[in-house]
Amino acid sequence: MSRRLVLAAAQMGPIQKAEGRDVAVGRMVRLMETAHRRGAEVVVFPELALTTFFPRWYHEDLAEADHWYETALPSNATAPLFEAARKFNIGFHLGYAERTPDGHRFNTAVYVHPSGEVVLKYRKVHLPGHAEHDPTRRVQHLEKRYFEVGDLGFPVIRAPIGETSVNIGMMICNDRRWPEAWRVLGLQQVELVMLGYNTPSLNMENRGFEAHHLRVFHSHLSIQAGCYQNACFAAGVAKAGDEDGHELFGHSIIVNPQGEIMAQATSWGDELIVADCDLGMCELGRRTIFNFAAHRRVEAYGRITEQTGSVAPAEWAPARR
Amino acid sequence: MSRRLVLAAAQMGPIQKAEGRDVAVGRMVRLMETAHRRGAEVVVFPELALTTFFPRWYHEDLAEADHWYETALPSNATAPLFEAARKFNIGFHLGYAERTPDGHRFNTAVYVHPSGEVVLKYRKVHLPGHAEHDPTRRVQHLEKRYFEVGDLGFPVIRAPIGETSVNIGMMICNDRRWPEAWRVLGLQQVELVMLGYNTPSLNMENRGFEAHHLRVFHSHLSIQAGCYQNACFAAGVAKAGDEDGHELFGHSIIVNPQGEIMAQATSWGDELIVADCDLGMCELGRRTIFNFAAHRRVEAYGRITEQTGSVAPAEWAPARR
Repeated sequence: MSRRLVLAAAQMGPIQKAEGRDVAVGRMVRLMETAHRRGAEVVVFPELALTTFFPRWYHEDLAEADHWYETALPSNATAPLFEAARKFNIGFHLGYAERTPDGHRFNTAVYVHPSGEVVLKYRKVHLPGHAEHDPTRRVQHLEKRYFEVGDLGFPVIRAPIGETSVNIGMMICNDRRWPEAWRVLGLQQVELVMLGYNTPSLNMENRGFEAHHLRVFHSHLSIQAGCYQNACFAAGVAKAGDEDGHELFGHSIIVNPQGEIMAQATSWGDELIVADCDLGMCELGRRTIFNFAAHRRVEAYGRITEQTGSVAPAEWAPARR
Repeated sequence: MSRRLVLAAAQMGPIQKAEGRDVAVGRMVRLMETAHRRGAEVVVFPELALTTFFPRWYHEDLAEADHWYETALPSNATAPLFEAARKFNIGFHLGYAERTPDGHRFNTAVYVHPSGEVVLKYRKVHLPGHAEHDPTRRVQHLEKRYFEVGDLGFPVIRAPIGETSVNIGMMICNDRRWPEAWRVLGLQQVELVMLGYNTPSLNMENRGFEAHHLRVFHSHLSIQAGCYQNACFAAGVAKAGDEDGHELFGHSIIVNPQGEIMAQATSWGDELIVADCDLGMCELGRRTIFNFAAHRRVEAYGRITEQTGSVAPAEWAPARR
């Protein structure tokens, strides 16, 4: 029996600093309605989808940033998303800033069943940026200030989406550049990676060789390689456009297990892309070239878990010259 | 001071089963001469560069395959390569089948200094294919029969190429599809990955969804992602064209640390591509987005070394519905 899934990625245009959650949530409900009309069974929203990307703003006192975080889900502000899920019988993935009852702060994503129940929660592991205000930077990137490193690992769960049971995993933004994250999901037979991001078009701190025009390429390269090498689908979903004076590059994509882009957002605003995913495509790689049990050689991978940073190699000592 | 390197990748056309090493070595010496005229300081040859890709031929008795292996390097047959290296003051990378004095067999590559000394040896870790004759296959792929898994890990060494000291690592063919291999090299600050391959244009055993036209894309995707995510250059060097009735896809490339293709072979024969590599480009990634010490989270990577094969995820158990 063919296992199929109609997957929607809901790119969002910018959310300005002054805008309340009601503005974002209203736009998301409209995107869910559109997704429903397009026959989608699940819709993936970006990272930190309820607010502006606030880690670009510095607060000396963390408590002053409390208003950027959710302390409950659903809340009064997010209840319309849960209502829309039920009404349209559609699951959704949401990225948001989480503050726990005991005061921990995470960059979090959840997958919510149409019933409103949270099926899977993930907390971002690869936090980019820095923890202290850096006066040499033109733009702050304070994720290491506002969030702790995620403490849930990279979980995968098998759960229904529409009529189909799907092995679901998640990443958030910078995680997508780290092949370790993809592999930990692949080792759990992930079939669909839900992945939201907020990535600026320009590297304002560019002190080297990175060409701005390569930034979308790098994002897509990482997602496409991750899908190919782990035989899974991914929805990589962006915020896009001018957010508080900072352009986010958008270009949300849905990628198949061959690493091909099936759908791509090309606007700078709210935009829904949809792909009809045949989950049987995940099996080819697993059975053949990426049959991990047959081909992986963990005895050669020790450094990956034994050391965090890189080490300089030995110098060659010629025997004779 | 700028650290630069003129790197040549010497794609080779097919080597037929009936052809002796003298034919291949003669062609390689001409490629080294061309590389010298183009100002290259190092030339990278493919995997199993001295013979046809013999793992497509079955021998019940392994000893009948002995003539495909080198037992010494240099040998009478390969001495002209070492002479050319000295004459042109050019280092070279060579892939070959190795049989050790105590009877072990490896798919091996070496980097040879212009002096003739072997600087670095690598034995292929990720052996694709199968160990026994498979009558259901149209083409055998007996790498797991003819070679043991490499026992040298993924070594990196800092050694001179021309006037520059370079952190050199190696992979062979299928290794390039495994992000673990790239990462183990990256964790040793590799700057140049030498990588030879023999990859057919058609997957003759295609029983699923792999489109033939994606095979070059998958090869390039893996190399480009590996270079980007580990901030290194690579020379990915193919055999190309119709070898004993089996087309090899060629498309050798040189890739920079931004994942960009700097040069690409586009013929089906012997072809030299050259790129002027600024090794300073390796520093940007290491200092910023891929500063491993700052950003890697090994506590979340345990599965990569703790388990070889994949495991099925838990099923979601809804609390209420």
